Amino acid sequence: MSWGKAAVVAAGIIPFGELFDQGYESLAAGAFRSMLSGADRSIALSEIDACVVATQRGSLWGQEGIGGNTVPSAIGLSGIPCTRVENACPSGSDAFRVGAMMVASGVHDRVLVIGVEKMRDKSTQEGLLSRAAAGHPVYTRGETAPVLFAPFATRHMHEFGTTREMLAQVAVKNHHNGCLDPYAHFRSEVTVAQVLESPPVCSPLHLLDCCPQTDGAAAVLLTRPEIAADFTDRPVFVAGFGVATDHPYLHEKATYVGLPATQLAASRAYSMASLGPDAIDCAEVHDCFTITEILDIEDLGFVEKGKGGQATLDGLTALDGKLPVNTSGGLLAKGHPIGATGVAQLVECFWQLREEAGERQVAIRKGNALQHNVGGRGSGVSVVTILTRDPA
Amino acid sequence: MSWGKAAVVAAGIIPFGELFDQGYESLAAGAFRSMLSGADRSIALSEIDACVVATQRGSLWGQEGIGGNTVPSAIGLSGIPCTRVENACPSGSDAFRVGAMMVASGVHDRVLVIGVEKMRDKSTQEGLLSRAAAGHPVYTRGETAPVLFAPFATRHMHEFGTTREMLAQVAVKNHHNGCLDPYAHFRSEVTVAQVLESPPVCSPLHLLDCCPQTDGAAAVLLTRPEIAADFTDRPVFVAGFGVATDHPYLHEKATYVGLPATQLAASRAYSMASLGPDAIDCAEVHDCFTITEILDIEDLGFVEKGKGGQATLDGLTALDGKLPVNTSGGLLAKGHPIGATGVAQLVECFWQLREEAGERQVAIRKGNALQHNVGGRGSGVSVVTILTRDPA
Repeated sequence: MSWGKAAVVAAGIIPFGELFDQGYESLAAGAFRSMLSGADRSIALSEIDACVVATQRGSLWGQEGIGGNTVPSAIGLSGIPCTRVENACPSGSDAFRVGAMMVASGVHDRVLVIGVEKMRDKSTQEGLLSRAAAGHPVYTRGETAPVLFAPFATRHMHEFGTTREMLAQVAVKNHHNGCLDPYAHFRSEVTVAQVLESPPVCSPLHLLDCCPQTDGAAAVLLTRPEIAADFTDRPVFVAGFGVATDHPYLHEKATYVGLPATQLAASRAYSMASLGPDAIDCAEVHDCFTITEILDIEDLGFVEKGKGGQATLDGLTALDGKLPVNTSGGLLAKGHPIGATGVAQLVECFWQLREEAGERQVAIRKGNALQHNVGGRGSGVSVVTILTRDPA
Repeated sequence: MSWGKAAVVAAGIIPFGELFDQGYESLAAGAFRSMLSGADRSIALSEIDACVVATQRGSLWGQEGIGGNTVPSAIGLSGIPCTRVENACPSGSDAFRVGAMMVASGVHDRVLVIGVEKMRDKSTQEGLLSRAAAGHPVYTRGETAPVLFAPFATRHMHEFGTTREMLAQVAVKNHHNGCLDPYAHFRSEVTVAQVLESPPVCSPLHLLDCCPQTDGAAAVLLTRPEIAADFTDRPVFVAGFGVATDHPYLHEKATYVGLPATQLAASRAYSMASLGPDAIDCAEVHDCFTITEILDIEDLGFVEKGKGGQATLDGLTALDGKLPVNTSGGLLAKGHPIGATGVAQLVECFWQLREEAGERQVAIRKGNALQHNVGGRGSGVSVVTILTRDPA
């Protein structure tokens, strides 16, 4: 039997993109309004007991360190408890987990989880060059995100014969899915040749192997399962989740062909949900780079270690494949507004399980969807969440 | 009956101060080791299921935005789930609340809560002047912390006849208590005359009306109440807690003689704990400025609105008073390492309730202690926690 002690009863996101015209609180408010307008019945503000806000870096937009507690006032909920959760790239999914535990603890019956990130308003003070000079020894050595993931691609190619074409196929697939997602940042097809010929960023990763920087927000409402039917006759339940940390720095890694934090988080989530990878209908996984999705589908147990590249070429993870992955377009096409990403992935899982995903709807046979993030100096922490139509 | 669904079974802190010789993870590790060495029995690393880290601003020390997930690896717990909670000045107390809900949810049996903040390693990039130029309209208008609290002092003086001598008595009392706390940043007495004659910062607040900038860390271990006896025969239970937000900006405030977020958080905490302010033996409250403690003791219901200054002069809140407040020295003398502050206040409550507070031990008659923080553009969010020896 799965955990099932919290239910998702409403979900919403805003179209992702470069949203220079919207402030941080505006993004959050947009996701909240989208959730309210998409709900199966009208939800009064007074029905929301508490809020968890995921934002990875409030400082980008100049308002240092208060990335959460300004949100309730801005969305008409001043007074309610509000907590900011930050956990690097998995901030949004971890905020969802914290919200689910708030509900399961009996303290709050209805918890709003909002993920929001404003990535594109970098001042020069907060840009890469200034961060590189900010004093931390690792930053000063140019350890940007592509630098953290490229060695995994190199080693995966070396050990398993993974090719740049296999990596490129991840981008081709996810950009195709993004074309079908009205909320995606990028909505145009790319070809394998375009990926291969795009400018190199950090070998063997080229520009189209990398996700963009995107502004965005997403929101879900979690309730006790006993009251979910009050909001919708099609709630989706939290079957399980898992979080795991790893040694954060590249020189400490035990392996360069997998992410132990993902493997451990997945085993915890599967155990809590009382199911395995073969029970998953579709998954939203962390494809910050093309190689990351290949590592993910291996580490999550969808394919054997080393077979992720070939499985992608073979169409396993395509929309019409046996296990569609990143139906939303993923981080590569939908975008990666950090705090919003995990919540947005869970919104996609919610829609897929309710068969509301429009042109990108996949076949739901077993009733379970999986969400995954990894981050924190690349792979210092992973979160895996499993949603289900039937928690029994 | 109080909530009682989580218990504190061990607690530790490091001596607060200007700890230039210790890195962020070193501070966290020190608090963790202090907790382990102070525990009633030996605790194995494998007994800790999950971690919540409170840090308000990871960026001060150059390692942007990953203020939590580097901690487990540094303290020998790599692999465990770890979540960073940030909620402005109440970050530590809110992390404790999240940890308590994790335990109560049934997901984690033993949750480590660490608050840690490195305040004194500011680069010029992160200093006040550069923040003032960082683009947020409020920052650019010089809205520093003293500026956010001084108008409350002015208005409180105007409406209630509160005097600078009354404010000064808060500092005199808390610095006296700090002399008795081996973990306090400042350990010397101050006189009313010294406070009055200290350099003005923002009228009517002078230097000794203000808390210092301090490095520090604190840790507690939370468990399910059913297994608390496995760790100690004197556990302390979480009786209740409350969080409330308020409109964050000064121009939006409904009043300048009280903090509605504190009043609302307190009413929630008292209700959850099934007790009132008269059941509290001692309290650690947020005295970032002297005026703040006066507002706090009124907003928490210890004295009538407007009477906080006179009550302080009369000795109500002194170590030998009817309701001792800030026995640890408070933020004014012990220091205010933001993420650590709330956790450290809860450590002091734990020690007082267990009658382990040494020279500053107060009489425990009812078995309950209260902890309070406020912050977020001054007063955008408050957290109140009530600990008890007997949850029945």
